[in-house]
Amino acid sequence: MTRGVLRSCVDPKNSPPIILRVSGGTSIIGKDLSHEAITTSVEDALRLNVAAVGMSVFVGSDYEHDSLVNLGKLVDECESYGIPVMAVTAVGKELEKRDARYLGLCCRIAAELGAKVVKTYWCENFDRVVNGCPVPVVMAGGPKCETGREVFEFVYDGMQKGAIGLNLGRNVWQHDHPVAMIKALRAIVHENATVEEAEGIFQTEKKA
Amino acid sequence: MTRGVLRSCVDPKNSPPIILRVSGGTSIIGKDLSHEAITTSVEDALRLNVAAVGMSVFVGSDYEHDSLVNLGKLVDECESYGIPVMAVTAVGKELEKRDARYLGLCCRIAAELGAKVVKTYWCENFDRVVNGCPVPVVMAGGPKCETGREVFEFVYDGMQKGAIGLNLGRNVWQHDHPVAMIKALRAIVHENATVEEAEGIFQTEKKA
Amino acid sequence: MTRGVLRSCVDPKNSPPIILRVSGGTSIIGKDLSHEAITTSVEDALRLNVAAVGMSVFVGSDYEHDSLVNLGKLVDECESYGIPVMAVTAVGKELEKRDARYLGLCCRIAAELGAKVVKTYWCENFDRVVNGCPVPVVMAGGPKCETGREVFEFVYDGMQKGAIGLNLGRNVWQHDHPVAMIKALRAIVHENATVEEAEGIFQTEKKA
Amino acid sequence: MTRGVLRSCVDPKNSPPIILRVSGGTSIIGKDLSHEAITTSVEDALRLNVAAVGMSVFVGSDYEHDSLVNLGKLVDECESYGIPVMAVTAVGKELEKRDARYLGLCCRIAAELGAKVVKTYWCENFDRVVNGCPVPVVMAGGPKCETGREVFEFVYDGMQKGAIGLNLGRNVWQHDHPVAMIKALRAIVHENATVEEAEGIFQTEKKA
Amino acid sequence: MTRGVLRSCVDPKNSPPIILRVSGGTSIIGKDLSHEAITTSVEDALRLNVAAVGMSVFVGSDYEHDSLVNLGKLVDECESYGIPVMAVTAVGKELEKRDARYLGLCCRIAAELGAKVVKTYWCENFDRVVNGCPVPVVMAGGPKCETGREVFEFVYDGMQKGAIGLNLGRNVWQHDHPVAMIKALRAIVHENATVEEAEGIFQTEKKA
Repeated sequence: MTRGVLRSCVDPKNSPPIILRVSGGTSIIGKDLSHEAITTSVEDALRLNVAAVGMSVFVGSDYEHDSLVNLGKLVDECESYGIPVMAVTAVGKELEKRDARYLGLCCRIAAELGAKVVKTYWCENFDRVVNGCPVPVVMAGGPKCETGREVFEFVYDGMQKGAIGLNLGRNVWQHDHPVAMIKALRAIVHENATVEEAEGIFQTEKKA
Repeated sequence: MTRGVLRSCVDPKNSPPIILRVSGGTSIIGKDLSHEAITTSVEDALRLNVAAVGMSVFVGSDYEHDSLVNLGKLVDECESYGIPVMAVTAVGKELEKRDARYLGLCCRIAAELGAKVVKTYWCENFDRVVNGCPVPVVMAGGPKCETGREVFEFVYDGMQKGAIGLNLGRNVWQHDHPVAMIKALRAIVHENATVEEAEGIFQTEKKA
Repeated sequence: MTRGVLRSCVDPKNSPPIILRVSGGTSIIGKDLSHEAITTSVEDALRLNVAAVGMSVFVGSDYEHDSLVNLGKLVDECESYGIPVMAVTAVGKELEKRDARYLGLCCRIAAELGAKVVKTYWCENFDRVVNGCPVPVVMAGGPKCETGREVFEFVYDGMQKGAIGLNLGRNVWQHDHPVAMIKALRAIVHENATVEEAEGIFQTEKKA
Repeated sequence: MTRGVLRSCVDPKNSPPIILRVSGGTSIIGKDLSHEAITTSVEDALRLNVAAVGMSVFVGSDYEHDSLVNLGKLVDECESYGIPVMAVTAVGKELEKRDARYLGLCCRIAAELGAKVVKTYWCENFDRVVNGCPVPVVMAGGPKCETGREVFEFVYDGMQKGAIGLNLGRNVWQHDHPVAMIKALRAIVHENATVEEAEGIFQTEKKA
Repeated sequence: MTRGVLRSCVDPKNSPPIILRVSGGTSIIGKDLSHEAITTSVEDALRLNVAAVGMSVFVGSDYEHDSLVNLGKLVDECESYGIPVMAVTAVGKELEKRDARYLGLCCRIAAELGAKVVKTYWCENFDRVVNGCPVPVVMAGGPKCETGREVFEFVYDGMQKGAIGLNLGRNVWQHDHPVAMIKALRAIVHENATVEEAEGIFQTEKKA
């Protein structure tokens, strides 16, 4: 979440811990979505009392160097305040890159530079990503799945292979039954539920 | 208004609240009007006791990255003093870009980066711009209209669709009856007047 | 005058108020004379106890952006100490640019960015330059004139049209009678002398 | 070792003195492995209580200038805290560069810029590298050797010719008997053992 | 002399006043020897207790702008501590540039930017270089001369034409009789000796 949305749309008295997105500076009609910079200072993140800050890294892109160096600087600043940095491995539109070799490389580099947690896409052989990364790994969502079961399956697989959590977007918010989706996913992440059990929770909640 | 004009032409004892323009560094005979930088420090804005600072953003241009990153930096600095930043969505000469999709994208990005208010052009379906933007939207003027009624019409439409105010230039100052124009526009913005009522005020004031 | 010459050639106990040139970084055998940067810090200008600092701006050149942004930064720094900045509108070798439209644009931009005084070339319709500029305008010299009278004529014209003073170089120092020239010019600037009167002073002083 | 690995994998209560790698910002799928920057601040190195910091220099590469200037800046910062800097002469994939002339040039430049120790590859005529370098030289490993004896031979040669130590990677960790390798190498470095003696230690330890 | 050599090879208890070389970042196998930056901070120069700092300027080269702007910054910093800056006019491999017109331009620019002393090559009409430069000029050595007498001749000529001293390299250290060379040169610089007298001193000392 960016500071603009946090300041204008979130009730500060009743908010869960927030991870503030601090990289940006691009648009979908601009030249290159990977040309990000740090667009929010750590001082402003402190003022907003966030739990952590997050930024994207673009390994293999034209702006790889910039994003990795910016990650180093962000960690430098955040360490002086004790704020954890989450690195987000961004792949842009090249979805074919989402294999364990590529994502494992991204996560490893981000962790070596000092990220305290890494968010990446689920992929086949996800344990190779997790095992090669010295810090915890969170799963992102990616493109919208056809069915809820597809979501439960990759989330279950990722959790079994070592992910510590989940950060989904459109597969929850664009779903017809987002609350049922969240409850089912929560069971997989926090209560070790199987795909079948999650599906059962989803069906029950959907009718509620 | 720039600091040069503010310091040399405005009576400091008798001035309304000012929004100081702090981006620039281009000329109409230079290479690219979108290649702006921050040309006035926040410290100098404080010294000038302005109500807010404003800068242009150029989404989709060659200098999109620079202007968005500069907006982030300006907000970083202004937050430490509590000065609001107004982002101005600039379109240069490409007037065809003035649709709700493009302007809505610009406003949204500027607000996410931390602008406290956004100034943009009126366009068809202006409510889409306003509704997608988490901060208040002010309407700019754009090219000179043929008649005062045209101005009243777009201003009325924009106000009805959620704008919080107006920032016109040549449609007032280059008009033969600027005072009558201002009074008519004021009625639309602050007294909820219709286009017909504004036209009536204009005709009355014009003769005064 | 640069700090090098000021420190090594000017007696600090017996010096008129100095405007220190603080931009540079080019040479006549380098790639582009308009590629200047700030080469003397404001802190060093303070140490040298100068009355003001001056820098060149290159509107319309390849380095327009850099010079205008540097002017903004210089003004930012100087405002915190109360030192006035003089902008010098540089035209390089393209003398054909010396018309009121171009010079007026340069002066206006420099003043908007915060220059407290602008130095520019005299041109036809010089009042258009002066009237469009919210701060005082000083006339530079330009190429060497054929006769002293030519100099008196453009200086007189410029003063009548609103210039506040003069900053000549080769038309005084390279003249056979520099003292006579200065006395004649002084009469035009400070005593409202006509061209004929200046010519008279010059002839008298020349023989003295 | 990078700060990410140091913070997440090394027990701070039971760690030998560490040299922290502070340059990076590249990946094996990026454009140029020599395009490194300083990715960890000296302040963070202090927090991690490391014995020294290390960075790569890329003499003769496209980023020679950047890496040498960064070395100068790193030394500037480290001198103010008294932390020694180790420069690592990197050659990328161009292994043919590993001769005494090239490596001697790299070591000399790094030492002149202020590195307190230099790590470089062993090469023929290694004494020319050591003798031309005003600070101590440590040998890096390079590609994996066929046999342990090959390793002992270059290490022995380098120590005899003036190296002060060793920094091997794959020739130890990827060996089938890393502990035996380390003990044999230790004897060469610290007890002046010959290649034959090292081979004897290796064979004994391998069976232990 | 660089800080690396100064710290590792010079006895701090028994050293003459040192001029520390603070520019660098190039190598003979890199892209451009004129692409230098400031590689040692003024703070570190203070720590090393040097008498002055020196840097190269490359007028007319691709990096003219960078080197001149860096000279300005170095002077800015040094003035705040009272450390004099020596500018060294570098010509690279283009020896044909060594005429009074070129070297005079370089010296003049360096002095205007604030260098307190300039080191340049001897050339024909060396008085034109010295007279156009508002600060003292020191002569550098240049390529190795065939005979000692050639050295005495250019040194004598330069001293007569206004140089304040000498900074030779290979014409002394690579000579078969460096001590005799130094004593002869010292006589020219400090005792106003003629070339013949210097030759006599050299022959006497050579046999000593």
